[in-house]
Amino acid sequence: MTTKTPAQPRSRKRRGRGDGTPPASKRTVNYRQLRNPFPVMSVFSDDEAANMHETALRMLEDLGMRVLLPEAVKLYAAAGARVDGDMVYIGREIVEAAIASAPKSIHCHAGTAERDIVLELGALAFQPGAGAPHATDLRRGRRPGSAQDFTDLARMSHHFDVFQMMSPSVEPQDVPTHLRHYFTLLTQAERTDKFPFLFSRGTPQALDNFEMLRIARGLSEEEFKAGAHAYTVINTNSPRTLDVPMAQGLIDFARHGQLCIVTPFTLMGAMAPITVAGAITLSHAECLAAITLTQLAGPGAPVCYGTFTSNVDMKSGAPAFGTPTQFQASLAAGQMARMLGLPWRSAAGSASNVNDAQAANENQMGLWGCLLSGATVVIHSAGWLEGGLTVSYEKIVTDVEVLNMVAELCAGNKAGTDEIGFANALSQVAPQGHFFAAPQTMERYNTEFYEPIVHDYANFGTWTERGSRDANTRATEVWESILAKPEQTMIPPDRLEQLRAFIDKRTAEGGAPPES
Amino acid sequence: MTTKTPAQPRSRKRRGRGDGTPPASKRTVNYRQLRNPFPVMSVFSDDEAANMHETALRMLEDLGMRVLLPEAVKLYAAAGARVDGDMVYIGREIVEAAIASAPKSIHCHAGTAERDIVLELGALAFQPGAGAPHATDLRRGRRPGSAQDFTDLARMSHHFDVFQMMSPSVEPQDVPTHLRHYFTLLTQAERTDKFPFLFSRGTPQALDNFEMLRIARGLSEEEFKAGAHAYTVINTNSPRTLDVPMAQGLIDFARHGQLCIVTPFTLMGAMAPITVAGAITLSHAECLAAITLTQLAGPGAPVCYGTFTSNVDMKSGAPAFGTPTQFQASLAAGQMARMLGLPWRSAAGSASNVNDAQAANENQMGLWGCLLSGATVVIHSAGWLEGGLTVSYEKIVTDVEVLNMVAELCAGNKAGTDEIGFANALSQVAPQGHFFAAPQTMERYNTEFYEPIVHDYANFGTWTERGSRDANTRATEVWESILAKPEQTMIPPDRLEQLRAFIDKRTAEGGAPPES
Repeated sequence: MTTKTPAQPRSRKRRGRGDGTPPASKRTVNYRQLRNPFPVMSVFSDDEAANMHETALRMLEDLGMRVLLPEAVKLYAAAGARVDGDMVYIGREIVEAAIASAPKSIHCHAGTAERDIVLELGALAFQPGAGAPHATDLRRGRRPGSAQDFTDLARMSHHFDVFQMMSPSVEPQDVPTHLRHYFTLLTQAERTDKFPFLFSRGTPQALDNFEMLRIARGLSEEEFKAGAHAYTVINTNSPRTLDVPMAQGLIDFARHGQLCIVTPFTLMGAMAPITVAGAITLSHAECLAAITLTQLAGPGAPVCYGTFTSNVDMKSGAPAFGTPTQFQASLAAGQMARMLGLPWRSAAGSASNVNDAQAANENQMGLWGCLLSGATVVIHSAGWLEGGLTVSYEKIVTDVEVLNMVAELCAGNKAGTDEIGFANALSQVAPQGHFFAAPQTMERYNTEFYEPIVHDYANFGTWTERGSRDANTRATEVWESILAKPEQTMIPPDRLEQLRAFIDKRTAEGGAPPES
Repeated sequence: MTTKTPAQPRSRKRRGRGDGTPPASKRTVNYRQLRNPFPVMSVFSDDEAANMHETALRMLEDLGMRVLLPEAVKLYAAAGARVDGDMVYIGREIVEAAIASAPKSIHCHAGTAERDIVLELGALAFQPGAGAPHATDLRRGRRPGSAQDFTDLARMSHHFDVFQMMSPSVEPQDVPTHLRHYFTLLTQAERTDKFPFLFSRGTPQALDNFEMLRIARGLSEEEFKAGAHAYTVINTNSPRTLDVPMAQGLIDFARHGQLCIVTPFTLMGAMAPITVAGAITLSHAECLAAITLTQLAGPGAPVCYGTFTSNVDMKSGAPAFGTPTQFQASLAAGQMARMLGLPWRSAAGSASNVNDAQAANENQMGLWGCLLSGATVVIHSAGWLEGGLTVSYEKIVTDVEVLNMVAELCAGNKAGTDEIGFANALSQVAPQGHFFAAPQTMERYNTEFYEPIVHDYANFGTWTERGSRDANTRATEVWESILAKPEQTMIPPDRLEQLRAFIDKRTAEGGAPPES
């Protein structure tokens, strides 16, 4: 077995052909609206999946959900659920009606139509790592997330087309909690025209958010409510609890026509059963209860099924990510989502403390679990370290490389006459010759292959001469070059002025502390 | 969106339950015989794939193969091929007869029956990175591969059950080339009972290898020929050339009933067309020519279809790995292999110069290409850096973590009554409680989850206290602990004595220089 290294191509020759032909244009692939090209995989039989669904319905009927918001309890009761204090027992007919009224396809309105996405089974969207208390990069080290980090990460999220959705990357901990939602919305309005994220930390913040986004988008109240212009993520409190801000979020977003992504965060062996089947049955039950609440508050409201289920390390109790168990949990959740016909989210992520081989392997393993389970939205698809306690600037870059490659795979390939190339390549080159100058190569050399953003193909000698920089180190340069560009303002000046005026007014009024 | 970290489980309690119950046994999953559980993906339509096959047949008929070994030319001619000097024009009926006679399922005999594998479509086998001139590790740095490295890597390959096949990891450059095959076979015979690799560097070495393996296995000549006891890899010289040692290898291995894995190494844009369709059509044609030669030399001889196709970086001409193009090439090759019905090999690998996030992501991306294309054998599944110029001890370990996880996914999962766990888990825990002490958890805590070999789930504080060691650094400890164990001898003393006597005799006779 011989490893052959090709001779260096006469590449300079190729680029300036000397016959006046202009060089081929650069490769362009649309990453903004993706369809999942990968075959869907199941981990359980259809009968097993049906039994899980049945068991979840039985749980909601017989074991019940604890619902801490009286308004939510009333909504369930009005639909016919049995109530005992804060325990709500939801009959299957209520759940089934909610599944029927939930939309199977959701048009998500971005700041510009070319950034719009449609969430439905078969679509694919990525969102960068979210919700971390800390940020880290090689220049400044690990620190509490700040307004600067939130802004930097918003700009990086905007930069990469493969993120179709914005995320609450890190908590800007230097912004007071009663004013934080003003800052995070203003930042997104200014820095991106992608589909934005809104916090749902109680009704006062949600209503502020809706009003600000309405201003930023230049929409009337009716226009705003008529389409999904933003999304939030609702984590149930597993097992079987819906707390006050989460229940408020489900109701507020549904009533205003905005998207809730419902995500029980169920760690197997801790807040969820130790088995994939048990954990996903629990997660499914909680998800059904939350979806039901959205449809009771606003029939037809956009809602996304979701799960984020991994195992704990049974030695330490620490959450583990990118494990075979997380992979199988994604597959199982996909089976449940397809049963409902709803778009759904899964998640990647990493438990590693540093952007190393573990971090890369965990994130990619989790990602493939999402891709093969037919997830519509992959949350935390890039940047997460420490199981989500930190977002790494460098890891966003190295994970984007993988996401870009997945987006390239979404674009497919062809094997027509020109691509097979009997005439323009295969018959043009003698045995042991090379294809550098074949007509097919000349036509395509600048457009055929994906060009990496951080992967380096230099040989060992060249790489050593250039400073032996690993991917993490090179990633620093990538994000620095993105942030070194002039800041763009994506919102018209008049709307920005109105938005700032609203924020000033609300700030003077005392803002809106988060509910708990 | 809140990231919840579970409270520490009362794990010590769980381990010694205090009621005299012994702790649950450790998780055991058989990694030795795997079936691919992943759905098969195509990149081209069936019509497109059929056109590629047709074009390959046309190439063999009209463009021909250059065959440098006169004996091979004679075999093709005897079967009816048109010959012009060293150019051989192979009619489709000759190729089709060869495909018909090639076995669709190959029983590969290891040193012990429990290590046997069956290569056929649907089976899955992994082999560690092979054929590298250099070795590297964090202790000793990058250096030319040596006998010590070959031995160390053989022991590591033996250690991990997820490698079902041995590989020629690195070239032991301190062993003279006319004696090297004695050393590599003796090392495998002594250190492992897994399915071994043999070089095919000319007939004299091949015959030595067969005789040594026959002695090592205690087989008569007839017994040896009756089953595949070892494999080699045959790289054609793309485009459209079969050189002397490769042609000899195909003939020798076929006549002795041993397995050839045929692998054109076709770099798109260099020795192959720039398109996936063109490169795989070329690779397919070469593969068909080589498979045909095996069947002409020994009808029914075990032969594995194969490809190793990736793109070059068009800026530098350097080979790139783990790219979307390599992924699609694997998918395309899988379509061709399924058309033939033959077991086939694909490959992972990395172009990175160090075991970093790039190295991990490339290898895993390539691996998923192999898995989703239904590859039977994944060669270079762990350890390759620099596009195969170096095998990294640490990278073997970090890649094995991924392979182990894939093997865990091969084992599947269940959702029976006990796993869904309405009675033994879901109904046992109150809202916002935990499942640490649920009966289902107690039964399974020690067997439910895969335990990583190098991934670390410690939180940032603990990880920092322990020295902030990244995965690469921790991997050093893993391989050092493997090599610190006493060396096992896997061959009975009498056979070892015979084998050594044979080697001494042949060495005294001058050994067997490789053909070129």
